[in-house]
Amino acid sequence: MVSSGRRWLREQQHARWRLHCLKLQPLSPVPSDLEISRAQTPKAVDVLAKEIGLLADEIEIYGKSKAKVRLSLLERLKDQADGKYVLVAGITPTPLGEGKSTVTVGLVQALTAHLNINSFACLRQPSQGPTFGVKGGAAGGGYAQVIPMEEFNLHLTGDIHAITAANNLLAAAIDTRILHENTQTDKALYNRLVPSVNGVREFSSIQLARLKKLGINKTDPSALTEEEVSKFARLNIDPSTITWQRVLDTNDRFLRKMTIGQAPTEKGYSRQAQFDIAVASEIMAVLALTDSLADMKERLGRMVVASDKDGQPVTAEDLGVTGALTVLMKDAIKPNLMQTLEGTPVFVHAGPFANIAHGNSSVLADKIALKLVGQEGFVVTEAGFGADIGMEKFFNIKCRASGLVPNAVVLVATVRALKMHGGGPSVTAGVPLKREYTEENIQLVADGCCNLQKQIQIAQLFGVPVIVALNVFKTDTRAEIDLVCELAKRAGAFDAVPCYHWSIGGKGTVELARAVREAASKGSRFRFLYDVQLPIVEKIRTIAQAVYGAKDIELSPEAQSKIDRYTQQGFGNLPICMAKTHLSLSHQPDKKGVPRDFILPISDVRASIGAGFIYPLVGTVSELPCYIMFPKLFQSLWFMGFNKPNSLLNFSKTVLGQKKSSRWSLSSDHVVLILSLSFYNLQGLFNHLV
Amino acid sequence: MVSSGRRWLREQQHARWRLHCLKLQPLSPVPSDLEISRAQTPKAVDVLAKEIGLLADEIEIYGKSKAKVRLSLLERLKDQADGKYVLVAGITPTPLGEGKSTVTVGLVQALTAHLNINSFACLRQPSQGPTFGVKGGAAGGGYAQVIPMEEFNLHLTGDIHAITAANNLLAAAIDTRILHENTQTDKALYNRLVPSVNGVREFSSIQLARLKKLGINKTDPSALTEEEVSKFARLNIDPSTITWQRVLDTNDRFLRKMTIGQAPTEKGYSRQAQFDIAVASEIMAVLALTDSLADMKERLGRMVVASDKDGQPVTAEDLGVTGALTVLMKDAIKPNLMQTLEGTPVFVHAGPFANIAHGNSSVLADKIALKLVGQEGFVVTEAGFGADIGMEKFFNIKCRASGLVPNAVVLVATVRALKMHGGGPSVTAGVPLKREYTEENIQLVADGCCNLQKQIQIAQLFGVPVIVALNVFKTDTRAEIDLVCELAKRAGAFDAVPCYHWSIGGKGTVELARAVREAASKGSRFRFLYDVQLPIVEKIRTIAQAVYGAKDIELSPEAQSKIDRYTQQGFGNLPICMAKTHLSLSHQPDKKGVPRDFILPISDVRASIGAGFIYPLVGTVSELPCYIMFPKLFQSLWFMGFNKPNSLLNFSKTVLGQKKSSRWSLSSDHVVLILSLSFYNLQGLFNHLV
Repeated sequence: MVSSGRRWLREQQHARWRLHCLKLQPLSPVPSDLEISRAQTPKAVDVLAKEIGLLADEIEIYGKSKAKVRLSLLERLKDQADGKYVLVAGITPTPLGEGKSTVTVGLVQALTAHLNINSFACLRQPSQGPTFGVKGGAAGGGYAQVIPMEEFNLHLTGDIHAITAANNLLAAAIDTRILHENTQTDKALYNRLVPSVNGVREFSSIQLARLKKLGINKTDPSALTEEEVSKFARLNIDPSTITWQRVLDTNDRFLRKMTIGQAPTEKGYSRQAQFDIAVASEIMAVLALTDSLADMKERLGRMVVASDKDGQPVTAEDLGVTGALTVLMKDAIKPNLMQTLEGTPVFVHAGPFANIAHGNSSVLADKIALKLVGQEGFVVTEAGFGADIGMEKFFNIKCRASGLVPNAVVLVATVRALKMHGGGPSVTAGVPLKREYTEENIQLVADGCCNLQKQIQIAQLFGVPVIVALNVFKTDTRAEIDLVCELAKRAGAFDAVPCYHWSIGGKGTVELARAVREAASKGSRFRFLYDVQLPIVEKIRTIAQAVYGAKDIELSPEAQSKIDRYTQQGFGNLPICMAKTHLSLSHQPDKKGVPRDFILPISDVRASIGAGFIYPLVGTVSELPCYIMFPKLFQSLWFMGFNKPNSLLNFSKTVLGQKKSSRWSLSSDHVVLILSLSFYNLQGLFNHLV
Repeated sequence: MVSSGRRWLREQQHARWRLHCLKLQPLSPVPSDLEISRAQTPKAVDVLAKEIGLLADEIEIYGKSKAKVRLSLLERLKDQADGKYVLVAGITPTPLGEGKSTVTVGLVQALTAHLNINSFACLRQPSQGPTFGVKGGAAGGGYAQVIPMEEFNLHLTGDIHAITAANNLLAAAIDTRILHENTQTDKALYNRLVPSVNGVREFSSIQLARLKKLGINKTDPSALTEEEVSKFARLNIDPSTITWQRVLDTNDRFLRKMTIGQAPTEKGYSRQAQFDIAVASEIMAVLALTDSLADMKERLGRMVVASDKDGQPVTAEDLGVTGALTVLMKDAIKPNLMQTLEGTPVFVHAGPFANIAHGNSSVLADKIALKLVGQEGFVVTEAGFGADIGMEKFFNIKCRASGLVPNAVVLVATVRALKMHGGGPSVTAGVPLKREYTEENIQLVADGCCNLQKQIQIAQLFGVPVIVALNVFKTDTRAEIDLVCELAKRAGAFDAVPCYHWSIGGKGTVELARAVREAASKGSRFRFLYDVQLPIVEKIRTIAQAVYGAKDIELSPEAQSKIDRYTQQGFGNLPICMAKTHLSLSHQPDKKGVPRDFILPISDVRASIGAGFIYPLVGTVSELPCYIMFPKLFQSLWFMGFNKPNSLLNFSKTVLGQKKSSRWSLSSDHVVLILSLSFYNLQGLFNHLV
């Protein structure tokens, strides 16, 4: 009795973990990300899993340092209260990025390794394509990283590969279906759909559902009239309306636009199509927003891939592939457990685009982590882009889907970005920073804090307390740091704290961790910005005005007609996922600070029905090609390091070495490999970016 | 001392495993493959690993039932004598397949679970594409299967995904390089290749190797003349000679032929290209033939992707991506451990095409297994197609690459196939078998044994003893079975044994196991069929005459010119990998039995330089499109089940259920899923096959 009661307690109520933290001995100057990662030996992942209260049958180990966590845990701990939920967002960044991932990792290192508070970081999985898996950035950086970095960046546990497989299966089904409908009679199609197996013909349950949808109340395949057979057998997809693209996790510019179906076997039914980067697949957004296998299946089935010739949406379910997609994704749905440099737990799960999707890691990882940390613990997750985009989507899309209530927002700022907003010269990837950024300049900082103030106000719209985390660079002066913290608090931040995690790890973020703990204890008055039942236009206008500070919005005729169509199709009550530049609060990347009096142009509107959002494209089409038309190109910019020259330089210095081609020891096999990825190959494949 | 000595013994010399075998309770009639698989609970893979002598740090667990085995084991056990090496091959099959995989699995179940002899089965990983991961066949069948079947068929540990990533990275590098060379000056290219990093310009080691290859003896980037800069910077790839295709593990007919590079950013440099199925990538053949990470890197670098404008081969190394490819493949190189229905160990590793590649699982899996079973143990592996193709390639290509010496060949025959060779009516997928096949017909069997005799003689060319395994079907009569065994022995088989593994598991193959053990104890007089130093034409002729029984070969002008080119390029001394139909000993699928007096037409010749073979295409091009031009189409035929209606029916009966859409319980999450893969979707996507 006593022992089973004790076990019950242990299972239901998480006390502080007895976590064996890994010690850091930070070097100065700070070595490259890869050197730091490789210098630390991670704990065996099963040890970590045990330390944080996972049962042996709740994990599936992948190698020594990664494990998938089964969703059954949510059932076991369903009566356990959730921990505190903290979002890391940022001010409007320079093209170089301001360090949200490092703050996220640094904060959990501080909470768990230094304050002995249970905490979890939940991060996005990066695309492998643009950099062949060898890059810094998404895993954090400096002494605030997820390790091992190469496992994080290469394949992980195959989730993106599963998405690729599922996405492309659906793509193949679309074109093949059109071909068959174009080349076969109603009867032939029907005989294939409902074949006679050992003399018996029966509808499958997915087909019965389709009959119901079509208003045909019959269950005997032989009872359908000719007209009903035709209605049942033909999806009548209009090829010009296909929005479902093939994907690859490779940055292959020659697949941006192509003509497919040119083999004689395809009988002339060729059409123009494109490949997107795998993480741009709607299936990635579905993975990020789902909360169970059953829900994922529903969402996958709802995905709209085209319209039929009557303008009605055609879904994956109509194509009959929902089950196959779900089976391919059955392992990908389980979050991936890894650890920080200091041995604290991290989930890496899902990595949807931050523009055409919502840019947040998975709901499931957050939910599981919130149970594992226990009521007094913390889950820290990150939203892509500036707070005006990533945080707004986190609240209005992700929290709406999950039902989770955030307790605090950490808003990451840098002196560099603030100086830019204050009127400093433009910051460009690959070009050395101007003097204004490397020397003290109080006036620029003071003027630039308008952006910080605005982003704080945006967070406050949602009723959540804001802690400003100033990510300190070596060149920042005491006066600059003090000024930012002072102005942030004056603008309504709960607190504002300088952070030094990059150079010394969690120890450098202890003050931030204390401030977050205090803010989160105050209780949240979280509210959504808009009611999803509002018309699509109203929801867009609300975001544009309340968040971006626009005077109004302006819809192109195309956008208006799409809105009408989606509304008529019954998709009007979905939340909005704005596809806007992250380099300005407005639609114009060069408008820094807090732009005013602008009209936000909505050039087009698209929909991810399975993921569950409408995404308006902001700006003229010609401004957006690299964001929307060529996600790979954009993806490169974002992940590759061309907007983060430091990580690129770190990469080339470390991986390519002083001699630009150095030995990279693969610890797993104790074989030394010449990593022959010359700078040219990076540069060559991606030089369309510069 | 004593204890360390004992440990040494245990580590160096494998005694009989103390393996906990899983009990079978075979049902009659035999349920579907999936039902059988799901009714058995596999051992935890770490338990299995320990039972067979793997140390804890030699495995990387993937979930509960799969693990990767590290290559470091080969170093630890390098002084351990190898076990016996047994190949399972087959007679010329009907389009329905004759059961080589089930015999392979049944044989190890008998050896280990019933005779207490250490044994390992080494199998190929099947493509996931053609059937969305839901098919039978490659995992064995009936009570001779690898479990869990769905893990085997879905993703496994991601090896094929890694191949896809590496293959497509190389493809992207080719087109991008051509674009850059077409649009940039020598100087601009050179500056990208050898950039100034912090004011310093240096060649990487891969670039120094390239300089050496070009005969430029300089190490200072600034010392090159203009002409040398141009020579160094330009690969001058001739786009019309590109043989490297993109791949996907999806059966997507619209990607068979397409025009890529149509986005404005590609500046008009569009060209026609195609996608192949992922397992057709040369990287898969490299994975199957390599014996270490260093060797894999060399092979990947040697892969020829095109010719330059002077007709010289351009390699992956010339493109500078060797290291990146190797890094992407660093985990894929480790064999995957699974188990049979009776709990005996299996490696599943690599699955190259059996036509354009050699159709055998990996050298590394065999090498590791041969150490693990110990000197008295057995490793059983399978070769694709009939013995005239799969076995010939196993000996001349795989054994040549590995240096391993086979001890015995198991030749699988069925009464059904023999009747076909004896003049029985044609056997067609999807059409019920004619009476001749379901009723006793001694004459047809007697006449058909000519094919069996010929295949026995082929094996004897290599000096290896042959045991005939007659895979018994329910309709086979005692007289038929006895006749086959009698004629097989008269033809020189060491033994001939009826097998019942499909219906009762290893117990049904004990007699075969005893025969194999005895044959293998006799010592092998293995020899290659030809000397690789012979001219390409002579090697082709030797195979055609000695193996197929052709009178001679006839080269098309294209084939002759390719042979001349490869010889001139220095590739004349590679072994030969014939791309011939498996449905006849000749090039004509309808010529059954032992065709005579035919001239084997060689329509074209291609090369996989990294894998290390030349592959002549046999037959006129118009006969081969589905084999060579459309590997996906062929792949479908091969793996999908259209040539194995039983597995297709099993699939549809089990997965789709009596109602053609049934519930498929995903044990991992205890969630019941409607598997909505209707018959139509299979049929629809693949109906170009029938």
